[in-house]
Amino acid sequence: MSLSISETELQEIYTFAIELSRKAGRAIVEGSSRRFASSAGFDQKKNTADLVTETDQAVEALVKREISTKFPDHDFIGEESWAAGEENVIGEKVTWIVDPIDGTTNFVHGFPFTCISIGIVVDRKPTIGVVYAPFMDTLYHGCLGKGSFLSSPHHPTPQRLPLASPQPLGSLNQALVAFEWGSDRRSEILSKKLSSFSKITGDPEGGVVGGKFAQGVRSIGSAALNFCSVASGSLDLYWEIGCWAWDVCAGVVIAQEAGAAVVGSQKHATDVIAKGDDFNVVTEQVLTGRKYVVVRAIDGNDEGKNREAQKHILTEFYGCVDEWEP
Amino acid sequence: MSLSISETELQEIYTFAIELSRKAGRAIVEGSSRRFASSAGFDQKKNTADLVTETDQAVEALVKREISTKFPDHDFIGEESWAAGEENVIGEKVTWIVDPIDGTTNFVHGFPFTCISIGIVVDRKPTIGVVYAPFMDTLYHGCLGKGSFLSSPHHPTPQRLPLASPQPLGSLNQALVAFEWGSDRRSEILSKKLSSFSKITGDPEGGVVGGKFAQGVRSIGSAALNFCSVASGSLDLYWEIGCWAWDVCAGVVIAQEAGAAVVGSQKHATDVIAKGDDFNVVTEQVLTGRKYVVVRAIDGNDEGKNREAQKHILTEFYGCVDEWEP
Repeated sequence: MSLSISETELQEIYTFAIELSRKAGRAIVEGSSRRFASSAGFDQKKNTADLVTETDQAVEALVKREISTKFPDHDFIGEESWAAGEENVIGEKVTWIVDPIDGTTNFVHGFPFTCISIGIVVDRKPTIGVVYAPFMDTLYHGCLGKGSFLSSPHHPTPQRLPLASPQPLGSLNQALVAFEWGSDRRSEILSKKLSSFSKITGDPEGGVVGGKFAQGVRSIGSAALNFCSVASGSLDLYWEIGCWAWDVCAGVVIAQEAGAAVVGSQKHATDVIAKGDDFNVVTEQVLTGRKYVVVRAIDGNDEGKNREAQKHILTEFYGCVDEWEP
Repeated sequence: MSLSISETELQEIYTFAIELSRKAGRAIVEGSSRRFASSAGFDQKKNTADLVTETDQAVEALVKREISTKFPDHDFIGEESWAAGEENVIGEKVTWIVDPIDGTTNFVHGFPFTCISIGIVVDRKPTIGVVYAPFMDTLYHGCLGKGSFLSSPHHPTPQRLPLASPQPLGSLNQALVAFEWGSDRRSEILSKKLSSFSKITGDPEGGVVGGKFAQGVRSIGSAALNFCSVASGSLDLYWEIGCWAWDVCAGVVIAQEAGAAVVGSQKHATDVIAKGDDFNVVTEQVLTGRKYVVVRAIDGNDEGKNREAQKHILTEFYGCVDEWEP
């Protein structure tokens, strides 16, 4: 791996991003206290499942200000800036891609799966990822070629991900899968979601034709924390259509550095599998493509076997999925 | 409230149950370390979505032994004893109803929503509830007439539940709802689940007839922690068909003491609403009826308004649901 910035610069950015995530985390917790103390008003961006809070905007402003002070030459793409109509093109510069509060609905309700997600793109490639969930005091971070790590009250010293030696995963039938209901639940979209969910979860011996009977399904409402859970090995597969680059950029790095496979659309996955390309090449097109599947590391000792096992799961998975355009 | 045991006895049982939950929690964490270190084998109770682990059985044996030593006159009903064919009738004696590991699938995968659930029935009434999630070091406990509480790394001193003054909840459209996919996903069951999920989540303006467009849906894979999340106010409603008394007994007390409404089947809910009965009467029939809905406190100042608001949500909710027999 050779980058257009020095190792020293990379390390400086990485350390700064981790510190910044904790500072933003404190602002999120403070915002939550105010929210529950005063029941201060919320704005509606699109509908009730897609909330923007004052804290969301305040945290993004804080993060943007800190970054531009420390690294005036870097670019910034944030969820709230995007909503406000700023241009978002990943250029030549180091680019910070930030979701100030991933899991906004959780934040509004006080459900603890809320985090700040800070992804950093260098040479148009996701290179650093930091995800901090302040209500659980859980920090995930990773850097290209350096591995990814978790710290939490249960793991006070940083633990390399995945947390345990990867177990075999021969089929979806053994898998704990995460998907989300999302905010777009119009009839034509919902029917595709339900058809996909039905095949993933259904019991073929109980009459569900083509059902894969996944061992369990989880929906926690945060794309970044889904990626991190796959990285840690506690989820086997996460699938979502409709997220944005800022939801996933940090998680992509953290997952990849833990040996997970990240793909975009079904077409992308099929191409990668057919051509034998490297899962670790997450292009700008995939990063901004709004369709993501991530599969955990399955073999920790043999990279070739790991990728073959992941391709097997991806092939099985895409046999269940009826994609839609977000 | 008058019970057949003294206040002193009640307090002694309550304190003991809390200590026991932490001891069991340590055994769960140790079992997890062994599991991930050795990939020790698992048993299959029913299918791959319904796993029993050695730790499950070991923790139940530990809890049962400690209780029978301390309170030799008490009865005990546990998930693993039940699976092994022991009789489970709630009699006149104080009865401990215990799930040693609620969220077994999570435990197996290392997903942190795993807990021990200790419910205590006095005079055939759920009276004490203790739920401890060791990987998150989060303890919920409640006792009839004394309120319910949460302690966690984020809340080191016990906080009374709900965590914040209840916000209005006029309709499911504003609600963060939890349901689970469960392990029974035969065609006829799955189609009823999907039909219900579709009405709860679907966007009526996007063509989903009768859709309530709930703000979000979460599935965390632990009935006890779903009850506790409704108690804390971070989930608005949780629904499940197919759990057992040991999954919910502790959660019932914790939720009720936080002002939540607990009902059983649709018929039970309809009867309670029609007759104006008290939600707080969870009979043995409801406790063991394997159908549960719990709605959070909606008005913290006026008990009558709270119950009316909960009835409104329950009526709306049951309009979406196509029940099945577990």
